[in-house]
Order: sequence, then C-alpha cells, then structure tokens
Amino acid sequence: MKLLLAAFLVPVLFCAPMPVPWKSVPAAGHLLIDSSFAAETHGFSDSRVDAAVRRFTVRIGRQTGIPIIGGKTALIVQSAPDAGSESYQLDISPEKAVLAASTVEGALHGLETFAQLIEPGQQGFEVASAHIEDHPRFPWRGLMIDCSRHWMPIEVIERNLDAMAAVKLNVLHWHLSDDQGFRVESKRFPRLQQFGSDGHFYTQDQVRFIVAYARDRAIRVVPEFDMPGHTTSWFAGYPELASAPGPYSIERSWGIFQPTMNPAREETYKFLDAFLGEMTGLFPDPYFHVGGDEIDPTQWKQSPSIQAFMRQRHFDTSDDLHAYFEQRVQGILKKYGKTMVGWDEVLHPGLALDTVIQSWRGQKALADATRRGYRGILSFGYYLDHMNPASFHYANDPQLEGEDSKGILGGEACMWTEYVSAETIDSRLWPRAAAIAERLWSAKEVTNVASMYDRLDAVSRTLESVGIRSNEQMMLDRIGSGGSLKMLSDASEPLGIDGRQVARKYTSLDPLNRLVDAIPPESPRVRHLTRTAETVAANPKGAKIELAGLRAAFTGWSGTDPQRFDNFLSIELIPVSTNLSNLGSIGLRALEVLADETSVSPDWVSQQMRVIQEMEKPVAEVQLAATRPVRILLDAISRKTGPQSTQGLNK
Amino acid sequence: MKLLLAAFLVPVLFCAPMPVPWKSVPAAGHLLIDSSFAAETHGFSDSRVDAAVRRFTVRIGRQTGIPIIGGKTALIVQSAPDAGSESYQLDISPEKAVLAASTVEGALHGLETFAQLIEPGQQGFEVASAHIEDHPRFPWRGLMIDCSRHWMPIEVIERNLDAMAAVKLNVLHWHLSDDQGFRVESKRFPRLQQFGSDGHFYTQDQVRFIVAYARDRAIRVVPEFDMPGHTTSWFAGYPELASAPGPYSIERSWGIFQPTMNPAREETYKFLDAFLGEMTGLFPDPYFHVGGDEIDPTQWKQSPSIQAFMRQRHFDTSDDLHAYFEQRVQGILKKYGKTMVGWDEVLHPGLALDTVIQSWRGQKALADATRRGYRGILSFGYYLDHMNPASFHYANDPQLEGEDSKGILGGEACMWTEYVSAETIDSRLWPRAAAIAERLWSAKEVTNVASMYDRLDAVSRTLESVGIRSNEQMMLDRIGSGGSLKMLSDASEPLGIDGRQVARKYTSLDPLNRLVDAIPPESPRVRHLTRTAETVAANPKGAKIELAGLRAAFTGWSGTDPQRFDNFLSIELIPVSTNLSNLGSIGLRALEVLADETSVSPDWVSQQMRVIQEMEKPVAEVQLAATRPVRILLDAISRKTGPQSTQGLNK
Repeated sequence: MKLLLAAFLVPVLFCAPMPVPWKSVPAAGHLLIDSSFAAETHGFSDSRVDAAVRRFTVRIGRQTGIPIIGGKTALIVQSAPDAGSESYQLDISPEKAVLAASTVEGALHGLETFAQLIEPGQQGFEVASAHIEDHPRFPWRGLMIDCSRHWMPIEVIERNLDAMAAVKLNVLHWHLSDDQGFRVESKRFPRLQQFGSDGHFYTQDQVRFIVAYARDRAIRVVPEFDMPGHTTSWFAGYPELASAPGPYSIERSWGIFQPTMNPAREETYKFLDAFLGEMTGLFPDPYFHVGGDEIDPTQWKQSPSIQAFMRQRHFDTSDDLHAYFEQRVQGILKKYGKTMVGWDEVLHPGLALDTVIQSWRGQKALADATRRGYRGILSFGYYLDHMNPASFHYANDPQLEGEDSKGILGGEACMWTEYVSAETIDSRLWPRAAAIAERLWSAKEVTNVASMYDRLDAVSRTLESVGIRSNEQMMLDRIGSGGSLKMLSDASEPLGIDGRQVARKYTSLDPLNRLVDAIPPESPRVRHLTRTAETVAANPKGAKIELAGLRAAFTGWSGTDPQRFDNFLSIELIPVSTNLSNLGSIGLRALEVLADETSVSPDWVSQQMRVIQEMEKPVAEVQLAATRPVRILLDAISRKTGPQSTQGLNK
Repeated sequence: MKLLLAAFLVPVLFCAPMPVPWKSVPAAGHLLIDSSFAAETHGFSDSRVDAAVRRFTVRIGRQTGIPIIGGKTALIVQSAPDAGSESYQLDISPEKAVLAASTVEGALHGLETFAQLIEPGQQGFEVASAHIEDHPRFPWRGLMIDCSRHWMPIEVIERNLDAMAAVKLNVLHWHLSDDQGFRVESKRFPRLQQFGSDGHFYTQDQVRFIVAYARDRAIRVVPEFDMPGHTTSWFAGYPELASAPGPYSIERSWGIFQPTMNPAREETYKFLDAFLGEMTGLFPDPYFHVGGDEIDPTQWKQSPSIQAFMRQRHFDTSDDLHAYFEQRVQGILKKYGKTMVGWDEVLHPGLALDTVIQSWRGQKALADATRRGYRGILSFGYYLDHMNPASFHYANDPQLEGEDSKGILGGEACMWTEYVSAETIDSRLWPRAAAIAERLWSAKEVTNVASMYDRLDAVSRTLESVGIRSNEQMMLDRIGSGGSLKMLSDASEPLGIDGRQVARKYTSLDPLNRLVDAIPPESPRVRHLTRTAETVAANPKGAKIELAGLRAAFTGWSGTDPQRFDNFLSIELIPVSTNLSNLGSIGLRALEVLADETSVSPDWVSQQMRVIQEMEKPVAEVQLAATRPVRILLDAISRKTGPQSTQGLNK
C-alpha cells in the first residue's frame, strides 16, 4: 500500500505536460499524429465535450502544422464511472489513446494534457505510450485580472481563458471595478459605466459571452466589485454613494484613495441591493467577490453624520463600521443565493462562517482564518505584477508546513494592472502563471526548480499556440531599429510595481511603451546562459561547446552599440548599453582566465565584482540580469585563485 | 515649368512612407502625438471616411502604445475640389495636420501616409512638418491570393486587406477555384463546395463581408473562377462538365492537369450562365476574372464528340476551341454587365477589345496586347511564391522602356499557394509586396534599392501593427528548442516553387512546417550584415563598430551546435548547421586578415571561395544566404593580395 501511494506521489517525468500529472507510467512505442487524426466521444452527451473535441482537433493542426482532414480515430474520449471531479485517466498506445473521465471538466483537462504530450519524434509528431492518472490538489485554481486600472478588451480575456484552460486553472477572478474604472454595463445604474469608464466597459452581452466561453473551457467566472473602498469610479456617476460630497471623476493615478462608500446611509444598501440583484443575475457562479480591501477611513472620520451613526450604534472604530458594512452586503448576497468572497480585511468579528477569505497577507493569515472555520484562497506570493521569477512563485505553497489543508480551497495568481496594459499583459502573465498553476494542481512534493523550468519552456510554446502573444519584438521595433535593442532586451529584466512606483509618478494616461514594458519579467536567455556558465565553471576545459556559446554571447554584448539610441524612448538606454558592453568584455576576459589562456592579478576578480555591483543598479526601470552568468565565472576564478579576494562582494 | 516637374518627380526622402509620395517638401517643426489626439472630418459625409478615421485613431494608439482619449483635434480630413481620383494632399505643421482629398479613396490613402509618418522623436511620438502631394502612377495595383491550393481562412483575407490598404494596393484578386479546391458557396450548384472543398469554403455571407471590408479600405475585389482548365474540383460534384467521363475528386498534388471543361456541350454554357449569374451578383466590381490559363488539351483530343464538334465548326486547333469557349463566356459576362479579365492565354483572334489581359508572360506580351487595343495588367516578375528578393520585384516595371503606358492599367503581385499555408502566407507576402506596391504607385524614377530597403524595414513595422504575423518564431519553436535554430533561420533563405517542386513530391496534405517554411524569403539579418561587410571591406581599419558587429555574428555562427537536431523536423538541418559553423570560422579568419592581425597563404582566399561555393548548394530546401557578407570580405582580401587567386569563383 505504501509503495502504491509513492507511485502516485512521485511523477515520472518522461514527458513534459504542465502541470505535471500525479501519476505517469511510460510504456513502449508511440502514437503517430498525422493528417488522418480524428477524435470521437463515447458515452458523453454534452455539448461542451463535443465543442472541446472540435477545438482540440483544430488546435492539433495549428500546433503541428499538419492539415488535419481526419478519417482515423486516434483518440477516444469516454465517460467513466465516478473517478472524482476534475480527474481523468489517459491510456496511450501506438494504436490509439483513450481518455476516460467522469465529468466534463475532467475530460477537458485530459485533452489539454494530451495536446501537451505531442512532440516531434523520429518519424513525425507523436505521443509516447503511457498510462496517466491525474487529479487536482486544490479545487480553486484561479487567476485574477484587474481590468479597471488598465482596460482589457474582450479579446484579451478570451485568449487568456484559453491559456488558463491549457494549464488547468479553473477560476477567472474578474476584477471589474476600482478607483480607475467601472467596467460592466449596468442597466439599472447606467451612470456607472457612462461616467466611470471612458467608454471602456463590457456590455452585458459580452459578459454573458465570456461566462459561456469560460464555462466551455471548464473555467468558472467570479466577478469582483471592490467596495466600500476603491470606488472612486462609481462616484463619478453616483456621488451620493460616497462618504463626502463630490463631485468625483475617474482617478488617473495609482495608490490608495480616500473616496469610500457611506455605510451609514440606508440608501447605500438600497442601491447595492438593486445593483447586486442585477449583477448576481449576470454571473451564475455561486461565489461573488466584494473586495473589502485597503480602506482609508479619512472620509468616515471627517463626516459628522457618519460619526453620529457610529456613536448611535456604539461602533468604537472604523473597523467596526467596516464590519457592519460587510455584514449588510453579505445579507444582500445571501438573498441572491451567493457566497461572499473578500480580501483579508473583511475578516471581522461577526462575519458569517461561509465567507471565503482571499489572503494577500500570507499563509499565516490564511491558516488563522481556516482554523476559525472559514475557507480561504492564497494570493500572497502569487502577485505577478511584482515581476518575481517563476521559481519564487513556485516555492510558495498555500499550505503551511505542519498545518492541514482543511478549509484551504486553493490559490489565485493576481495580475494588478497599474503597470500592465492590454499590449503587455500576456507577457506579464505567461508563462509564470503556469508555475503557479502547477503548484495548485500537482503534488506538493513536486518542487524541483530546474525541471519546472524545462516544463515552463515547453508550455510557453503551448500557450503561444492557443493565442498568447508577448508583443516583445513589436514593442522593441517601436522603440527603434537595430540588433542591439534585442540584445539589451535579452539581457535585462523589468522592475515590478515596487520599483516603478518610486521611479516616477505614473498615471493611467502614461504610455507603457518603454523597454521596461517590452521585456519579459524573467529573461529566458539569461537563464540559459546562467546554466551554461555553471557547466563551464564546473569544468572549464571539458565544456567546449558551452564555452563557445558563452563566448558568442559575450562578444555580442561587448559589441553593443548605443549610437542609434537617439529618440525619447531609447535615449534612456545608453547607460544600460554601455554597461552591457563592459560586462561582455569582463565575461570574455573571465573565459580566457578559466581556459588558462591568460592570467590576471590577484585582485582582478574583486575589482570586477565591484564594477558588476554598480551595473546591477536599476537604470530606466530595468535591471541588468546578464550579470548572473558572469558572476558565476568570476566566482569560479576566485575559487581557483583563492576565496579571500571576493570576500563580501557576492549578492 | 521644367523645374516644377522635377520637383514632382524626385521625392525628398526626409520621411519614410511606402509607397514614397510623389512630392514631399519638408518644413520646420513637428506635430506631437499624445493621448489628446483627435481627428475630425470636414465636408465629407461618407460612412467609409468616418469608419476609417475611427480605425485610424485606434491604430495610432496601437502603433505608439499611447492610450488615446482624445480632446484636441490634431488632424482634419477635409473634402477638396476635384484633385483626381485617389490623390490627396497633406499639410503638417506643429499645430495640426490637414488632409485634403476629393474622393474617399484619396482620403484613405492620406490617412495611411500620415500613420507611417509618425516616429519617435526627441519629445515623444511626432510627425515632421511637411507639404505632401500624392497620387498613383497606375490605377490597378493588385494582389492575387490563391485560396484554392491551400485554404485561407477568412481572418487571413481580413488582415491582408488591412496590409494592402497600408501600402495603397487597391485590388484584391481573389483566386477562388482551381484543381485543388472550390472555395465559394454556390446556392445554385451546392455540389461545387460540397464535393470540391473539404468543407473549406467561404459562405456567401462571408463573401459579402469581405467585399464590404475591402470597400471600407478603398480596395476592390475581383474574383477569379479559373476555367476551362484548372477545374478538377468543380468536376468532383459535377463530372458532366468535364471533357472526359469521371468520377473526379479533389486534386491533391501540384501541376497542370488534364481535366478540362467541355466547350462542345451546350449544357456547359447553360451551367456557366446560371453559375456566373449567381456569382456576378455576389461580387459588385465591374471586372470579373475567368482565368483561361494553362490548358492541357488531352481530354479534348481524346473525346470523339469534341473532335466532331471541332470539325463541324471548322476549328483546326485546340486554340480555336479555347477561343470559342472564351467568346461564349465573355458573352455571358457581358449579359451580366461585367468586363472580362483573363490570363495571357485568352488572347485569341476574335476576343472582344474591352477584355483585360493579365500577363504572366512578360512586358513584351503585355505591350503586344496593349498595342492591339487591349488593356493589360502585369504580373510577370511579381510572383511572390518564387521567393525572389524585394529588389528583384522592385526592378520590374510594367512599362517597357520606349513603350508608352497607354492601356497598361497596372500590375498585380501574385501569391500562388502550392508551398504556402495560412500559417506562412503573411511572411511570404510581406514586406516584399510593399516593394511592388511602391513600383505601381510611386514615380517610375524612384528606383534606389538601398533607400527602398530602408523604407521596407520601416513599413514592416507598420504591417505588423495592422495585424500581419510572420509566425517565424512559433514555427522554429515547433521544430525544436535552442538558440541555434534562430541563428540558422537568420542565416538561411527558402527555395521558391522552382526549387521545391524538384526537391520532393509534395501534395496538399504535406505539412508546411519545416525550416524552409518558417524563414522569411529574404533574410534581413544577412542583408544588414552584407551592408556592414561592405563598410568593413572599404575601410577595415576605420570601421571599428562594424567590425565588432561582424565578429559577434561570426562567433555566433562558429558556435552553432547541431547536437539538438534530433527529431524528424530538425535532423535535416545538421549539414546546414555544420556549414554555418565553418562559415563563421572562415569569416572570423577573414576579419583577422583584414585587420592585419594575421596573414594567410596566397591561395587561402580561393580555397575558401571553393568551400563557400559548396555551402551555397541547397540543403533541406534552404540556401545558406550568410555566405554573402563573407564573400565580400574575401573579395576585399583578394583585392589586397592580388586578384588572380579568386578568378572565376564569384557568383
């Protein structure tokens, strides 16, 4: 029994789907995919499965470049006796593949796994024979997209739903209102979108389309209307909802603002009752998110009528007033059959136990809530707008060591869009969100980072084939021409929200069209060069191909030419370019030293380390990531020549 | 007067729109484009202009990355007294731009020019002040897309119409039927699409959508139903139309095939009358293309009834029979109010003089036809599927030296799709079709190739911003991972139809997913390196930055690693990779020699030239284009060391 469990928990990584399945047993042979490929369903009579199989067949064609005309059944999707919600089994042999699932969701997840298993082999595109059993670790695997701070046209939501489905994320948390924009058409209160959106909002037909589109891909849509704070855009059309007299207009800058709903007026709840009545009808999911975060109580404190209301109710603090507001909202949602979801701050005494807490504060806050009987979702550590590497998010587990996972529904990657536009969101979401998807789906024990990155590279291609676009090259072309820009881009990484908000004062009207916006959060090129440098450092004489690879890269860097950086978008890059050029020269010298072609003075390494440390300071809101492989070579030299020379200089 | 004419004919190239305008006079200052940008129309009351201005405003946002919310009129589009069809005038000053045109087409062309004039300047995105007067050289500037041999989904047509509009092409010649597929829904003869299309056809609603979409972009749509040859797909549903008994099925291979309509049966013309009656109603353009090319008379010769018909009519040759067929078809078209267009072969005695001849045979055939009173369109020299460089097409003028252009309506770029799929068509069409567009729009005297390539690089970015996608990286990722593949891609160029049809036997079911399909017809990287090599060759000691650029490129090549080329798509690339690696080493050595860092034996250059000549033989249907810059360096060395050593070895 113990052995069997182990087999379930330690996946055999002969293939590279992401998230990695719970159990994979390889077998002999391959199933060939050619233009005769066809799939059929047995026992399912569900339009969603039929539609998914049709989409899947088109996608196989796009993924492989094979013109599929069908004729021979290579994949059977069949209904199985109850195997658990979302779970599926895949049996692949050289003759055919059989996908068995008891739910539509399971069948759809199995199709995604199958699509990722297709690879170019010796004879053609093929899927290696295997027996796969798979199911999710957590039932709530979400992605939050903030469509308020930067408007996200409906195509953005569509293609990102396809991407979510590809990595088995199953909840779109749609952040639809905030200080900077109200993004859904209300027929009851049309001034919400008329005055709060610059004309950028989803019509109710579009909302219904997206909900259906998501459902077709086994994804639930949970809307968020953030209140009582983060509501400036509501007040542009309905100033009477606010705790201080208006007028109000759409907020154009970023931060936490004072405008807050008035919890002391009964008319506020009348409005919310009618509004939530309309919106709960639009979103069929049983969960409904009402935000509740980051309340600035200034307006409450300055309002005599609110202060009088608090005294009358014996509320000592703003927290008490907030708790009262949440209880009223919860009552309204309950009437409409919805379970309330809120951020950490909603957790006040008296909050109903069926509330779901979304924690941006951390695993400890989450565990505290679940110990008290609430259910929770972790978002702390999954904020993609912070521009951390995938490995950072991957190491972040919803479940604290030693705590049980009772009450933990799962987690949600969060994409706040102060510094993210419709043009850049794909590259800021993907592929890193796939690492979070794996953390939430696969076994807790699957933690090898190098292996995760291998899968991440592979899943990037899958994501591209479902429509995800980085737009990097187009944005670089906009900044200027010449090969140096791409080299700079490959060598750099952007600052996240923390770095950018101190670098300059941004508003929503500032274009996000600079190098910092174009480049991916994590440079794959630097990652590969870093691995190569590790190989060279371990064995400078033996790793000839790797050494040649590094030499080519460093030669390129050393030849970086800032001469063409002469317009308003590129001029800020001259120092980055100069740094990269110098870094290339240091790297070339380091390679010569390691290959014993030249020697350096004893303190050369420490001198270079100091130079590199200077280069790592952000310029133009980007950081030179390319120092990493060079640091590794310098470390190797210092190990050769003696460690004392670099004392205290490594990061 | 002479001076004025000269000013019109020799454009001042201070800015880079493509096609280059007839007259551009720069002025002082710039018009800044920011988020307040708005355009308005004066005097036009045409929904097409309004729609174009709205699209234009969205596009400015996409092109610059600026969130446009409007508020300040920066561009006025105004109706002008008659200035000629398609012509326009643009006056740009630091305060505003005024676009004047007397037709919708002229206004739309002016918007495209304005969009291309926006560039990143010192303060932001800006348009340099100028006075521009512009009009087309030829009224018929077409692009033919073959949707029969490979199916082109409607999105392909849409985005390519946007690209055509961007470079002022104004005729989509839509090749809708051929042996390999019948691509339009016929309600009168539904077996055409039912048996002739594999389910890949445009519905009549889609056709109407495309015609309207094109009209909105000042583009006419001329359909082609090729007959009496190239008609196998018609016969799959209606074998009685053929000259020999069936059954017939969709042709899967490429070439000229025997199935041909029966010109001797009266029922054929009854069918065509009803069919053309339906189709002429669907396509409002006054011109209608009926092909008429490449007729194999075998079926006619083998049919006793056709032979009897010929004797009865005193037809001596198959040409006479073909002439009879065309006259009958022309009669039908005339009845429906259409002017017939056909390929060279329709030009038989007795053909009505209002016929338009499309010449794939050459300028001489075209001039012969126009001298006899016909109107003509040149397509010879504009076949993009031959994979010639843009400079080749650019040098091809519709008008012969010494002949006048009377009767020459213009020209058409042709995209035959034996070796082009929906995935690869964008990169095979663009940017090269833009060079043809310039040839057909701009003054005959605009012929500088280096300047054309500068504009081509710029217009590539415009084309990308209207939705054109090369798919190169996605296709490379499909073949395999690793940086070597991109290096190989940048160093190689694909064979055209001539080379590919002899390399292997293709059918329409063969995937077009190899390196040859992924890479652009003309490597921009090699072109830039070639220019760099010319600079270095001219002054090896002075061109330090250029020398470093070449050294970086050659170092990269010399480090090419074929180790990962182990699947069925990449294994054929091992010899290409080996060649590139050797070429890189030769290049590095050549740089050392030119920089006097080393010397070589007198016959070293001729040895290397022989090696390079071997490398230039096609492998895997691609050619190593990267030899060009290395050849230039070797030539420079041989000039230094004496010319005798390379005698007869250059291309």
